[in-house]
Amino acid sequence: MTSSWDIKPLNTTNTTVITGNINQKTKPLGALGDLEILATQIALIQQTPKININPVMVVFAADHGIADEGVSIAPSIVTQQMVLNFLQGGAAINCFCRTQNLPLFVVDAGIKYPIEPYPKDLISQRIGSGTNNFAHTSAMSIADAERALDLGTNLANDFIQRGFNTLAFGEMGIGNSSSAAALLAAITGEPVEHCCGRGTGISDEQLMKKIQLITQGLKRISSKAPLYLLSEVGGFEIAQICGAMLATAQAGKTIVVDGFIASTAALVAIEINPAARDYMIFAHKSHEQGHQILLKKLNAKPLLDLGLRLGEGTGAALALPLLKAAESFYNDMATFASTGITVDA
Amino acid sequence: MTSSWDIKPLNTTNTTVITGNINQKTKPLGALGDLEILATQIALIQQTPKININPVMVVFAADHGIADEGVSIAPSIVTQQMVLNFLQGGAAINCFCRTQNLPLFVVDAGIKYPIEPYPKDLISQRIGSGTNNFAHTSAMSIADAERALDLGTNLANDFIQRGFNTLAFGEMGIGNSSSAAALLAAITGEPVEHCCGRGTGISDEQLMKKIQLITQGLKRISSKAPLYLLSEVGGFEIAQICGAMLATAQAGKTIVVDGFIASTAALVAIEINPAARDYMIFAHKSHEQGHQILLKKLNAKPLLDLGLRLGEGTGAALALPLLKAAESFYNDMATFASTGITVDA
Repeated sequence: MTSSWDIKPLNTTNTTVITGNINQKTKPLGALGDLEILATQIALIQQTPKININPVMVVFAADHGIADEGVSIAPSIVTQQMVLNFLQGGAAINCFCRTQNLPLFVVDAGIKYPIEPYPKDLISQRIGSGTNNFAHTSAMSIADAERALDLGTNLANDFIQRGFNTLAFGEMGIGNSSSAAALLAAITGEPVEHCCGRGTGISDEQLMKKIQLITQGLKRISSKAPLYLLSEVGGFEIAQICGAMLATAQAGKTIVVDGFIASTAALVAIEINPAARDYMIFAHKSHEQGHQILLKKLNAKPLLDLGLRLGEGTGAALALPLLKAAESFYNDMATFASTGITVDA
Repeated sequence: MTSSWDIKPLNTTNTTVITGNINQKTKPLGALGDLEILATQIALIQQTPKININPVMVVFAADHGIADEGVSIAPSIVTQQMVLNFLQGGAAINCFCRTQNLPLFVVDAGIKYPIEPYPKDLISQRIGSGTNNFAHTSAMSIADAERALDLGTNLANDFIQRGFNTLAFGEMGIGNSSSAAALLAAITGEPVEHCCGRGTGISDEQLMKKIQLITQGLKRISSKAPLYLLSEVGGFEIAQICGAMLATAQAGKTIVVDGFIASTAALVAIEINPAARDYMIFAHKSHEQGHQILLKKLNAKPLLDLGLRLGEGTGAALALPLLKAAESFYNDMATFASTGITVDA
């Protein structure tokens, strides 16, 4: 494994200064609620007098062997079709990026049906043509899990080199909520039926089958080592996002965490290096029930709660205007001293 | 009273068509959660194949006689100082409008200490130099309450004439959470202590006094007639916002409702004409406890829940990117038919 991540826990020495800055703004103490917490976290990450949000959205797509079992509402070919949709600008994530001029990049982390001819604007980081069916065997080798972490790491470092300092990660992969539920159950020890939801909308019968298959896959798990878990029940996109998050934290940049699947990648990243948590902003509370367990474990209060269950990075994209709002008030709002306002208003 | 409002309840004939449009988008059914509900409401308001959000923010400022009793953390002069802050671009609402190029207008609806010389970019709609102290006497005459509704109506119509179709209203006024709590208690019959909160952060002692004064003011209330209530315990800014909301609904345009004070204006507007409710989008859940009672009464689920308690229209401004997101996905997202995607993804 070439990657290892030296992540510094946030230096909180300046917390009092930052809180003091916020309290000098022309508003009552604490009146901007969660935006004040958000601005404080970003200011602690950036350690500069003004904060700056220069965001990018990176969507990782991959397929999952377990999808062959019919645990999703759609077959694996839809992953390919949705990647094409991303490239053509037709998906929800394209719309939400366009309204705020948010740069969007799409990564093929290993979809089952490769696109021919290979599109020039699709970043190729294919580990394979989908994972193995983890209900029956390891999803991927340890070497492939390491490679996925490395590819995610290198890509995040590329974006950071290009000047982006706020990295939001989305995903697309038919079957990936099964993989996410398995990782969550393995790491937290929570019952599979609590970690597992209807994904994008499966029936009661499919849900029972999904729970049974995940339970079956988890029977062979003999350790909580994160790399091992990624190889046993993970996904190429989840592992690459995990690597990208670790690299972002190592570079001291901000991670915007989307919904259930991306949060599972975040959970694995935190298992690998707990300091990564300090750099994460949780964008939204997914409709998927496993997400509530995960958010509780990570002591995370997401910015949005809109009942989304789409993935693609949509929740992260929708939360970005709140980061820009935090940037704006922290940098530009007048102070009591500058306005001569006599008392908190 | 010159104003009366002929508001058409939403024509819901096209609901099935609109839902069908949304369900044809390349996403699982319902996967965009509350954004789908939002897009549906806007599409029903606009009754056009594509929806369009052209927003404006209008902040109404006024003073309240009850502030002399010390029921707020700040004296009435701060209303004037904050109006100057708005005009100079230093307040939170300025920051949140700037990040999204949202036009912002400020109205003097009757602040206690008029600004001299009168700023050319401050819209003058002064009813007086603050209301009377409603703990002891009527806040304003019936004629002034009518005039306030008319001025709000005319101003909203002006903005609509200029092409804005999504009107967000904010407020500033030391003491106005007392007026809002009184209106809420009078209309709903809920106990004053449930309708009343700490506003921008008063002490236990101040809160007790606030409850006592509001209770005292409400003792003379003999009717639930909305105009009468506005005159007895209302505020110039609340009444103007109420008129502006009624005019917006009458014109078939969208109203974005901010926090506790603006929601109270919305409540009074709905008491005057219940059809106004159909045109309202509730932006955020205020930290103020009375807001929960009000939202429940209006069966409203706000888009954001960020613990804000600032007013100024800040919650409405922060929610506007979600309206733009709804616009974008409803208009521009690809359909299953257009992409050839074989099944819900």
